[in-house]
Amino acid sequence: MIIILKNDVDRAQAESFAAELEKKGVTVEFSQIISHITLGLTGDTDAVNEEAVKANCLVKEVIRVGEPYKLAGRQFHPDDTVIEVSNQPAAKIGGANFAVIAGPCTVENGGQMNEIAAAVKKAGAAFLRGGLFKPRTSPYSFQGIGFDGFSFLLNAKKEYGLPIVTELMDINHLELFNEVDVIQVGARNMQNYPLLKELGRCRKPILLKRGPAASVTELLMSAEYIMAGGNDKIILCERGIRSFNNYARYALDFTVIPELKKKSHLPVIVDPSHATGISWMVPAMSKAAIACGADGIIVEVHNDPENALCDGGQSITLEVFSSLMDSLRSYAVLEKKVM
Amino acid sequence: MIIILKNDVDRAQAESFAAELEKKGVTVEFSQIISHITLGLTGDTDAVNEEAVKANCLVKEVIRVGEPYKLAGRQFHPDDTVIEVSNQPAAKIGGANFAVIAGPCTVENGGQMNEIAAAVKKAGAAFLRGGLFKPRTSPYSFQGIGFDGFSFLLNAKKEYGLPIVTELMDINHLELFNEVDVIQVGARNMQNYPLLKELGRCRKPILLKRGPAASVTELLMSAEYIMAGGNDKIILCERGIRSFNNYARYALDFTVIPELKKKSHLPVIVDPSHATGISWMVPAMSKAAIACGADGIIVEVHNDPENALCDGGQSITLEVFSSLMDSLRSYAVLEKKVM
Amino acid sequence: MIIILKNDVDRAQAESFAAELEKKGVTVEFSQIISHITLGLTGDTDAVNEEAVKANCLVKEVIRVGEPYKLAGRQFHPDDTVIEVSNQPAAKIGGANFAVIAGPCTVENGGQMNEIAAAVKKAGAAFLRGGLFKPRTSPYSFQGIGFDGFSFLLNAKKEYGLPIVTELMDINHLELFNEVDVIQVGARNMQNYPLLKELGRCRKPILLKRGPAASVTELLMSAEYIMAGGNDKIILCERGIRSFNNYARYALDFTVIPELKKKSHLPVIVDPSHATGISWMVPAMSKAAIACGADGIIVEVHNDPENALCDGGQSITLEVFSSLMDSLRSYAVLEKKVM
Amino acid sequence: MIIILKNDVDRAQAESFAAELEKKGVTVEFSQIISHITLGLTGDTDAVNEEAVKANCLVKEVIRVGEPYKLAGRQFHPDDTVIEVSNQPAAKIGGANFAVIAGPCTVENGGQMNEIAAAVKKAGAAFLRGGLFKPRTSPYSFQGIGFDGFSFLLNAKKEYGLPIVTELMDINHLELFNEVDVIQVGARNMQNYPLLKELGRCRKPILLKRGPAASVTELLMSAEYIMAGGNDKIILCERGIRSFNNYARYALDFTVIPELKKKSHLPVIVDPSHATGISWMVPAMSKAAIACGADGIIVEVHNDPENALCDGGQSITLEVFSSLMDSLRSYAVLEKKVM
Repeated sequence: MIIILKNDVDRAQAESFAAELEKKGVTVEFSQIISHITLGLTGDTDAVNEEAVKANCLVKEVIRVGEPYKLAGRQFHPDDTVIEVSNQPAAKIGGANFAVIAGPCTVENGGQMNEIAAAVKKAGAAFLRGGLFKPRTSPYSFQGIGFDGFSFLLNAKKEYGLPIVTELMDINHLELFNEVDVIQVGARNMQNYPLLKELGRCRKPILLKRGPAASVTELLMSAEYIMAGGNDKIILCERGIRSFNNYARYALDFTVIPELKKKSHLPVIVDPSHATGISWMVPAMSKAAIACGADGIIVEVHNDPENALCDGGQSITLEVFSSLMDSLRSYAVLEKKVM
Repeated sequence: MIIILKNDVDRAQAESFAAELEKKGVTVEFSQIISHITLGLTGDTDAVNEEAVKANCLVKEVIRVGEPYKLAGRQFHPDDTVIEVSNQPAAKIGGANFAVIAGPCTVENGGQMNEIAAAVKKAGAAFLRGGLFKPRTSPYSFQGIGFDGFSFLLNAKKEYGLPIVTELMDINHLELFNEVDVIQVGARNMQNYPLLKELGRCRKPILLKRGPAASVTELLMSAEYIMAGGNDKIILCERGIRSFNNYARYALDFTVIPELKKKSHLPVIVDPSHATGISWMVPAMSKAAIACGADGIIVEVHNDPENALCDGGQSITLEVFSSLMDSLRSYAVLEKKVM
Repeated sequence: MIIILKNDVDRAQAESFAAELEKKGVTVEFSQIISHITLGLTGDTDAVNEEAVKANCLVKEVIRVGEPYKLAGRQFHPDDTVIEVSNQPAAKIGGANFAVIAGPCTVENGGQMNEIAAAVKKAGAAFLRGGLFKPRTSPYSFQGIGFDGFSFLLNAKKEYGLPIVTELMDINHLELFNEVDVIQVGARNMQNYPLLKELGRCRKPILLKRGPAASVTELLMSAEYIMAGGNDKIILCERGIRSFNNYARYALDFTVIPELKKKSHLPVIVDPSHATGISWMVPAMSKAAIACGADGIIVEVHNDPENALCDGGQSITLEVFSSLMDSLRSYAVLEKKVM
Repeated sequence: MIIILKNDVDRAQAESFAAELEKKGVTVEFSQIISHITLGLTGDTDAVNEEAVKANCLVKEVIRVGEPYKLAGRQFHPDDTVIEVSNQPAAKIGGANFAVIAGPCTVENGGQMNEIAAAVKKAGAAFLRGGLFKPRTSPYSFQGIGFDGFSFLLNAKKEYGLPIVTELMDINHLELFNEVDVIQVGARNMQNYPLLKELGRCRKPILLKRGPAASVTELLMSAEYIMAGGNDKIILCERGIRSFNNYARYALDFTVIPELKKKSHLPVIVDPSHATGISWMVPAMSKAAIACGADGIIVEVHNDPENALCDGGQSITLEVFSSLMDSLRSYAVLEKKVM
């Protein structure tokens, strides 16, 4: 950590400030740049409260020398992480792979799951998604089918050989998720730290969605919470940020894709369905995602969107999905990605 | 719910659409305004998926007739809710009362808690705050003292007769919070629905903080989650929204105070400490809060901010707090509030 | 315009309100939906102040029946506008064309302009950009070379046969822009109405950049200002919106592309250089632009970015541009666009 | 300017980079902090393109030593600027004064202006506002009465002794504004640099409104444009920032008031009418403004808001204004402000 002091701070003040810092276990080196005394801190700088230092009346600026996400960052892990889900070579996320996760917002019944699974498998999806518990803004909205629907999801998994992705909302449900291949953490739980810590203790891949107002650092630090527990199989997911735009549910700022790829070795996918909330925008946003370097998409597909129990307005039909997959395959060739 | 169809929709299309809607159990009335067929829905309109209706190609606009928050809204509860905490008449929140909750960000040790409690009590605070578990962006930051610090908080409560406010992060800790007077739900957990449902089953006042990108409807719907469980003692708390401004931690959009007071009967307080992250801004923002109709503030006060274990940069000193309380008392007279 | 009154408004109140509205020259039809009296306004509804109606205590909701942008909107102009610049068939914007406008942020000297023009021409750009007057946040920053640089721009135009695009900042300069092929209105002037009105009187294509906080309606209404004067050759340009993200200069919310294409028949291009401010992000954002339906890009290219007089940090080199053009040509095939 | 290089940059690279910088006329001092070579630049650092330096692959961080707004900033002008408008001692803005500017959004006719002027004068306003030209989002909305209404404004000024504030939109109108006491620059023109430069040449006070997405630095740099021309009578005005909140027209982030007062010596006022767009919110926001340190408000007052030609929804009545002034006078006593 580098601390630049204000230009009217004298040596005695700087030394007294440095002495306070050294009490926390760091070593402080002095330097001078133009008229500013500057302190270089080494050692366990995590013990120094950066916000309190910034608020100190002697301080002009604080510069972190390293990124705070040691495990999620590229600095000590320059190569892309590639996650092979459930040891299935066809189900890889990261690196040269473009992963398509498709399925309904919510599991409804066996017939629906099978029909959708068959269609997305045929169209080329590598993963099946489907929610059992749905985080809904209203307590009066349909909250998901719950564990009653688990068998529908597992049957479809078995029948069509698609690894399944479903959301965990309640920390106490983890032990019931044994047959789930990828556990999703929703945007509303991105900073539910007890949940993240618990997921650090399991060894399944975690699909971590970015909250709509989360900074890149906050997202990577949430990944770090899981990784610090020993689970390094994290898939980051952009699903839109809140802005003043009011025609789509969220803004889909694609600059975050190259930024995350630069800062982190973890795979980054996009959720165009929840980001826009509008089915007709999903194909264009999916193509933009692959074009700017994303490692995959998670997309809502439904056999009967107008009568879907949840989020029908953002689900694309089986036909639109099939046609989108054709487009994505052409794009994948240009981007040298395997689908 | 009122649905205005596009002007080129004919009667046959409208009737077929209405028939689909009626399958969900609502009654549909037809009307015509200028060139638009319009549908009026009555009955259990919660069963109709508003987003899917909006996404239907026949639909121009959907208007909700009532607010979705039946318990938190003013419509069926026109009078202000006044919460008497732990049956202490001096500890009221809502109505004509202006509640000041003060204390350190985090409980550190017994001496610190007693010194701060004594000072805030003397200055006129009615509640003592202090965190045991701290939601920190980094897994490597100090995570709070945990239950080891509970005795320090309880001692200060007993010694100075101040009801205590502390944050619950983990759903499994609830039973240990028996002696806590007000349970805080942090901004990161505003949409942790399993936690909210659990709090609906307890009977303690809940201080519910607004997430930095949460809309007013989302905040009130989170209150509704708790209230739907039977607990109607909710205190709403504004703690800043995320914006492009970069000099304070969040933007403090005070138009939310009159808006929340209009829409809801629940008390609304402001957290100027977490909203700004900057101690010198706290007094000005606290005065603005009372001036525009807030029912209280929750403010971080520390006996030694520069050496605080957490968030020292936003804590005000005991002296600044005492002087702020003097100002607030003068403002309370103008606003006809009891402090 | 449709006005839904609150459910407790009686017929007498509604009639008195309707009488006030009719004084402005509109005709009011009455209707009733569930328990709400509803007014349908026809005639010159532009004379009715929508905001004042919304603020009226009898009113629940106001719905506009048509879009306010009659000339820029698709409703009365369903086909895409295609602009043939300076009667050059190779220089078309809109429809099936993908237009690439490239060049330096600012004109510096004749050698620079010729070198860049030669290179972007060779790589396949159809237009040359170059600023004479630069809107800079600081009055102490380089303000552009001014009319002294005009000859460099015109020479390059003549030498390489590339139509030129340059920004007009001062309403009094318009008559000097005779040899300019496309006049750019910068984001800071998007709502400079005297300037827009003046441009409505000329017959040159106008490249209108969206302001960083402008809504889609505001952007289209600014186009409408120009079109209402008789100039219908407008090219809309997305160059990022302000958000809390801090790693790129602006957020690049690509949902705006399909939204603008749906609402308007005007061509929509993207400026990845000013949107991101970061040269290494420009290729990824350019590819995302074509992938999601944009009609072109305007991109900063420099022969020596590190020593550019202005915005060097966002300019790509001649080599990167040439390679980007190769990628875009492959994408154009997939999107059935002519480049 | 201080430039911290990346930790893997060696001395030779640093020297070659420094040599490039010195070509622009600055002096470069070398220093070393922990493992980072650091450059301290002195001399005419405005000649160094900060963005290009940041984009250089050797550079980790760039820190400006001084603020870029030398005239608008507090650094070289520690005392508050107090502007005495038109040499009237009762019409001061800044310092210990709280200035209230009141009047209609737009000048309509002589009777209206006189009635409103009489009422706001009686209630204690020190300035009269009224627009002649209105920047309206739609070209079809009422654009203001134009110079035809000037006599109504001047009559009211003369009759009631109130200095007048009106907006200049067109650079070519300046010479006609001789009898205007304070010239307003609207939010849409905050970065219309030719206009700002022209205003730098006049000697009238300028009320400069912040654009809805402008940063504090951008606002102060726009003030700097005017001040660099020799006119130092600038009044800054906060009128809301664009956010995702949708119940008021803009978000009113009051942290900007103490921030601007810290950074600049210029007076800072608030426009609660345009910020919220909602008349019933205006009194609460006006009180919050004085409570957090603003130097005044500019507020829309109308004798018949429902029939106002423009922005009636945000105008308060004469009665509400009179009662608001009573409240503000009590607040002014607490804040030791003169009204």
